[in-house]
Amino acid sequence: MESQKTKYLRSELEGIVPYTPGEQPNLGKKVVKLNTNENPYPPSPKIAETIEQILTEGLLRKYPNYNGKYLRESIARKFDVHPDQILVTNGSDEALRLLFQAVLGPGSTMLVPDPTYSLYPVLCESLMCDINFLRVPLLSNLKFDFQALRQSKADLFAFAHPNAPTGILEEKKDLTSFVQNFPGIVLSDEAYIDFAPAKASLIDQIQSLPNLVVSRTFSKSYSLAGLRVGYLVGEKNIIQQISKLKDSYNVGLLEQQIALTALEDEEYFQKNINLVISERERLTKVLRELGFYIPDSHTNFIFCKPPTNFGPEFIYQTLKAKDILVRYFSTGLAKDYIRISIGSERENEELISEIKNIMKK
Amino acid sequence: MESQKTKYLRSELEGIVPYTPGEQPNLGKKVVKLNTNENPYPPSPKIAETIEQILTEGLLRKYPNYNGKYLRESIARKFDVHPDQILVTNGSDEALRLLFQAVLGPGSTMLVPDPTYSLYPVLCESLMCDINFLRVPLLSNLKFDFQALRQSKADLFAFAHPNAPTGILEEKKDLTSFVQNFPGIVLSDEAYIDFAPAKASLIDQIQSLPNLVVSRTFSKSYSLAGLRVGYLVGEKNIIQQISKLKDSYNVGLLEQQIALTALEDEEYFQKNINLVISERERLTKVLRELGFYIPDSHTNFIFCKPPTNFGPEFIYQTLKAKDILVRYFSTGLAKDYIRISIGSERENEELISEIKNIMKK
Repeated sequence: MESQKTKYLRSELEGIVPYTPGEQPNLGKKVVKLNTNENPYPPSPKIAETIEQILTEGLLRKYPNYNGKYLRESIARKFDVHPDQILVTNGSDEALRLLFQAVLGPGSTMLVPDPTYSLYPVLCESLMCDINFLRVPLLSNLKFDFQALRQSKADLFAFAHPNAPTGILEEKKDLTSFVQNFPGIVLSDEAYIDFAPAKASLIDQIQSLPNLVVSRTFSKSYSLAGLRVGYLVGEKNIIQQISKLKDSYNVGLLEQQIALTALEDEEYFQKNINLVISERERLTKVLRELGFYIPDSHTNFIFCKPPTNFGPEFIYQTLKAKDILVRYFSTGLAKDYIRISIGSERENEELISEIKNIMKK
Repeated sequence: MESQKTKYLRSELEGIVPYTPGEQPNLGKKVVKLNTNENPYPPSPKIAETIEQILTEGLLRKYPNYNGKYLRESIARKFDVHPDQILVTNGSDEALRLLFQAVLGPGSTMLVPDPTYSLYPVLCESLMCDINFLRVPLLSNLKFDFQALRQSKADLFAFAHPNAPTGILEEKKDLTSFVQNFPGIVLSDEAYIDFAPAKASLIDQIQSLPNLVVSRTFSKSYSLAGLRVGYLVGEKNIIQQISKLKDSYNVGLLEQQIALTALEDEEYFQKNINLVISERERLTKVLRELGFYIPDSHTNFIFCKPPTNFGPEFIYQTLKAKDILVRYFSTGLAKDYIRISIGSERENEELISEIKNIMKK
C-alpha cells in the first residue's frame, strides 16, 4: 500500500532521512531552551520601527526586491566586497542547499570532517544522485586532521567554522593553506563566527581564494533565528551562477528589511555578542570545576563531556524532565557529550543548579 | 576566463536562464504598478497586532515551528483536509520547486499547456538532468486542447488554474476527468483561484484523486506578495515525501503568524476579493468598448489584445514612459497581448486615461 501511494514520486525519496531539528516546545510552554543555539537576548530594538514603516507604507502587498539589493549593499560595505559577491538566502540553510546543488552532480565527491554540521549529508541525499560522501574523523583532540583531508580529492569540502558540535576554531593559516591546495570548492560555514575573535572569518580571504565561499546567518549572533535570513559570499561569477537556482523571490520584504536594520545596529550587536561570550566563559568555568571536559568554545554553545559515572544521555534526559532542554547526539564521538547553548544568566544559573543536583546523587 | 571562473560548478548551470520577474521599481518611486499581479489593497489590518505580539514576546530570537503547525491546522480546517495533507512553503514558488524535484529525475517527462506559468520550464532546467518537456498549444479560443493533452503521457502535468497569462478558467469536470486518466501527478497551480467562482478549486477533489496536488499562495488574494507564503495540498504520503526536501525551517515565524491572521480574517478577505473582481469587470468592459479583445478573466489580471493598428509592445512601452507598468511577453501567442493586473479604482482610471490618449493618436 505504502509503495503504491508514492508511485508518482522518485523512488530515491523513500531513503531520505530529513535533518532533525532540535526539539521546539509548543508556543507558550515555559522551558529553559538551550538546545538549538538560539541567542538568549532579543534582536535589535530598532526592528520594531522598521516593521512599522513597512506596514504604514503598505509594502507587504508588493513583491520584495528579488535579490535583496539593499541588504546585499550593506553586507558588501561591512566586508569590503562587491554586492554581486553576495547571495541573500532564506536562512543559511538555503545558501548551503543552493551551493551543494550547484556543485554536486552524479558521481561527485563531497568531503567533510567528522563530526561537523549534520545537515551536509542530508543535503547530499536530497540531490538524489550518486554522490560519494567522504568523512575524515577529527583527531583525538577534536581538531581537523589536515593531513588526511589533504589526501582526499573532492568537488566540495564543507565545514563549520568554528566547528559544530565541538565549538572549536581551527587556525586560519591552516585553513587558508588547505583551501589553496584543494581542487574543488570549499565552504566555510560561519554560522557561529561572530562569537569567535575578530579576524577569524575567512571572508577576507575571498578575493585571493577563488574556490572559497563563506556562508553566514542572522539566526545566532543577530538573535533572529525566527526570521530566516542568511547569505553566501564568494567570487562574483560563482555567486551569479548559484543565484540562478534560487526561488524568484526567496527572501521576503520583512526579512530583508529587518536583517538590514539588525546589521546596521552595530553597537547593539557588539553588546549582545559580548554578553553571550561572557556567559559562555563563566558557564565553561563552572562546569569544568564540576569535572566536565569542555574544549575551548568560540561559538554560542559548549560541547561538554560529563565526568566518569555520569552518562551524557542520562544528564540530557534528567534535565529535560526538569524542562531544561540541551542537545544530545547519539552517534559517533558526539555520543560522549552534551551540547549546551549559552542562555541568559538566569537560564545558565538554572542549568548549573540542576546539574549540581544530578551530581549530588 | 569565464569558463575558468566557473570550473568549480556543474557545467549545466551555464545554460540555465532564470525566471524573469516583472520589473520592480526602486522603493519610493511612484508608479502605477500593474505588471506583477499584486493586489492593489492592503492585507488584513489585523496583522499589525500579530506582529506586535511577536515582538513583545521576543519570539524572533527563536526558531519558528519547522513545519508551520498552526498555519497548517487552520488551512486544513478551511478545506476540510488533514493537516498532514498540507506543506507550508516559502511562497508557492517553493511548493512548485519541491514538487518538481520530488517527481522529475533523469529521463522524466513533463507536460504543460502552452502558454501557462512560465516558471515551469525554468524549474525543470534547474534540476540539471535530462527532462523531456512537452508543450501542448492552447486551442484558438485559448482553452486547453484536452484531446492532445490526453495523448501525451508524462510524469507530471502542471497548469495554472485559472490559467496564466490568459486568465481563463477551465471547466472543473474536464479537469477532473483528465486527472483521473493521467498516469502521473497533476499540479493544479491555484495562485489566482480566489478570484474565480466558489467551488472552482480542485482542492475538494483531492480525497478522490490521489495523483492530484494543488498549490496556493497568500501573495495575490491575501495581498501578501512581500511575505512569501504558499502551500501545497495533496495526499498525505505524497506531502510527507515531498516535505523531506524542504529546508529545515523553510517558513519564518512572522510569515507563519501573519499568514494565519490573514487566513482567519475571512470577512476582510471576501471584501478585498470582491473589490478586485468588481474593478476587473469594470476595466474589462471599458477596454472592450475601446476595441480590445479580452477573454473572460477569473483572476486579478486581464489578458488584452489591442485593436488592429496598435501593437501591444508599443502600448506597453508608451505606458511605461508614463510610469504605468503592465506586462508584455514577447514570445508565442502571448506576444499579441498585454497582461494588465487589476489596480485600485484610481490606478485603473489612470491606465484607462493613458490608453485613451494612445488611441487618439
